[in-house]
Amino acid sequence: MESSKNYKVTVYVTYKESVLDPQGQAVQGAIERMGYEGIDSVRIGKYFEITAHAEDGKSLEETVDAICDKLLANPNMETYRYEITHAETDGAQA
Amino acid sequence: MESSKNYKVTVYVTYKESVLDPQGQAVQGAIERMGYEGIDSVRIGKYFEITAHAEDGKSLEETVDAICDKLLANPNMETYRYEITHAETDGAQA
Repeated sequence: MESSKNYKVTVYVTYKESVLDPQGQAVQGAIERMGYEGIDSVRIGKYFEITAHAEDGKSLEETVDAICDKLLANPNMETYRYEITHAETDGAQA
Repeated sequence: MESSKNYKVTVYVTYKESVLDPQGQAVQGAIERMGYEGIDSVRIGKYFEITAHAEDGKSLEETVDAICDKLLANPNMETYRYEITHAETDGAQA
């Protein structure tokens, strides 16, 4: 508790460009069979909305990096990126 | 082909707030068991990166709305939002 602040973390995990995404191709095929035109490619990723508290953004970043590397993304096939924002309960917004 | 422009569409599909997300809770539990502190909640969504071409943004929006409603999201349990941006091959950026 002490002086910890609330944060919202959004993590995006996607396949690396070099990795085929058969699920995305299946969705693209379904879109075509439904008769919609103009969709050239579909790639599917995962999306994590996390609420967290931490002393400061830097210590939270270290935690999020570790969680992504060890749990949320498979570093052999996937890449990740994330955004950290202050949650509304903490007035200041960087 | 004609005068169609290239677009990038990013679709985010998440469970409605009122719907439990057991997969997200499982991830949160795993994070705790790994010893990381400060993670208060995790919700998991899907994320689609789509490349498309269309006459204009408005006609593409209609297509994307229909695809989301009929294929990408389950309207009973999920909500979606999306962003449409011009792809780089088309110089102008709104």
